[in-house]
Amino acid sequence: MNYRLTIQYDGTEFHGWQAQGERRTVQGELARALALIEGGEVVLHGAGRTDAGVHAEAQVASVRLGRAPAPAKVRDAVNGNTGRDVRVVEVSEAPAGFHARFDAKGKTYCYRVFNERFASPFWLRYAHHEARRLDVGAMRRAAPLFVGRHDWTAFSAAQAEARTRVREVTRLDVLERDSRRGRGRLIEIRVSAEGFLRYMVRSMAGALLAAGRGELAEDDLRRAVRTGERPRAVTTAPAHGLTLEEVHY
Amino acid sequence: MNYRLTIQYDGTEFHGWQAQGERRTVQGELARALALIEGGEVVLHGAGRTDAGVHAEAQVASVRLGRAPAPAKVRDAVNGNTGRDVRVVEVSEAPAGFHARFDAKGKTYCYRVFNERFASPFWLRYAHHEARRLDVGAMRRAAPLFVGRHDWTAFSAAQAEARTRVREVTRLDVLERDSRRGRGRLIEIRVSAEGFLRYMVRSMAGALLAAGRGELAEDDLRRAVRTGERPRAVTTAPAHGLTLEEVHY
Repeated sequence: MNYRLTIQYDGTEFHGWQAQGERRTVQGELARALALIEGGEVVLHGAGRTDAGVHAEAQVASVRLGRAPAPAKVRDAVNGNTGRDVRVVEVSEAPAGFHARFDAKGKTYCYRVFNERFASPFWLRYAHHEARRLDVGAMRRAAPLFVGRHDWTAFSAAQAEARTRVREVTRLDVLERDSRRGRGRLIEIRVSAEGFLRYMVRSMAGALLAAGRGELAEDDLRRAVRTGERPRAVTTAPAHGLTLEEVHY
Repeated sequence: MNYRLTIQYDGTEFHGWQAQGERRTVQGELARALALIEGGEVVLHGAGRTDAGVHAEAQVASVRLGRAPAPAKVRDAVNGNTGRDVRVVEVSEAPAGFHARFDAKGKTYCYRVFNERFASPFWLRYAHHEARRLDVGAMRRAAPLFVGRHDWTAFSAAQAEARTRVREVTRLDVLERDSRRGRGRLIEIRVSAEGFLRYMVRSMAGALLAAGRGELAEDDLRRAVRTGERPRAVTTAPAHGLTLEEVHY
């Protein structure tokens, strides 16, 4: 039987999604728990290979189990054998051919910035703290530059090993919210694409932060998208501000 | 100069507000940082003496400093000398007679319950997890019993040392929210009163949880409020679900 799992995790204590030797990873922790149910090794495919420190509200994974236990049993058994910072929210039967990564049509990530002089204790793990007041208008004006089909070389890891760095970004919004819990200004950069390169959202967030601080002109950003050359002002924003929000099928 | 401080803290790693010997408390940590500014001991008055594990989004405290530094300087100096789980959000000059506790006209607390089969990693520290589906309708029907001027003996710590256990509760709402971050059902019990006895909100939350599980009839609750005898089904809900939201002046 093939299963589809919806998974949440607080990425703080994980070395990312992908299993790598002895390090604690989300995939490794889940595969270990699933192997207990299966009575043998399993192969778990995740839709997005999130980096160390990145969170997920609805990561999707697929796994084939020979014993065909009931979906709710799979959920409870996995949740009983993993750390509390990762939870299987839902398990359902999936068509035999379903593959969480290859079948994904797109994903939505959210990058959060807590923008006050003080860093809210409630957002320490989930939002990047920026003490300087950001110009959200400037960030919003820059946002459309990141939408469309482009080669994102300027906004990805230098050593990105993908065949092509062309991806279609379908939407990017800069939202300003009053963070009830943090009593302050929370800025959310929400971006959807058919696929992402490594560090792509964090590089875009870094660019938008530079724009919001008045350190990066719209024209320089436009040129970067066109030429693939990364402006100096663009940093890769820290991992803990990033959350995988949704996988689209 | 007299100052008014608005303070946030994640109560997880504190032994409550009130200074007590060697233990790490919010009052103790703030007073230590303020003493560095003052160059001598200070007396810090908090509006609400929250228990160990309880959080605050906007605790209010008052303190008199002889050196009269600028409010923003007080804020930044304290934030530079305390753990990241407590933050001074705002400091303002206060009238000479202002006392954070004696001048408070009331407070609002929020008790959060994450109500899904799984415990969301994002709410572990800030909401009590209840796996059984709660009947919010029953909780709402019981809510008005907790509003008004009553002796709250049945809903406070047995050893509460207050002169009188009569308090006026001005409002109690049971809200059902879709927790975006936790992808699940979040129930908020928000209660305002002129004052609270020790464990009062957590006892009310425990009673409402019992009502929501169908384990406590409205009549039994009504009798408890009238007689001061605590029904067996009423537990004191865990501290980490509780947050001091606002102090009213």
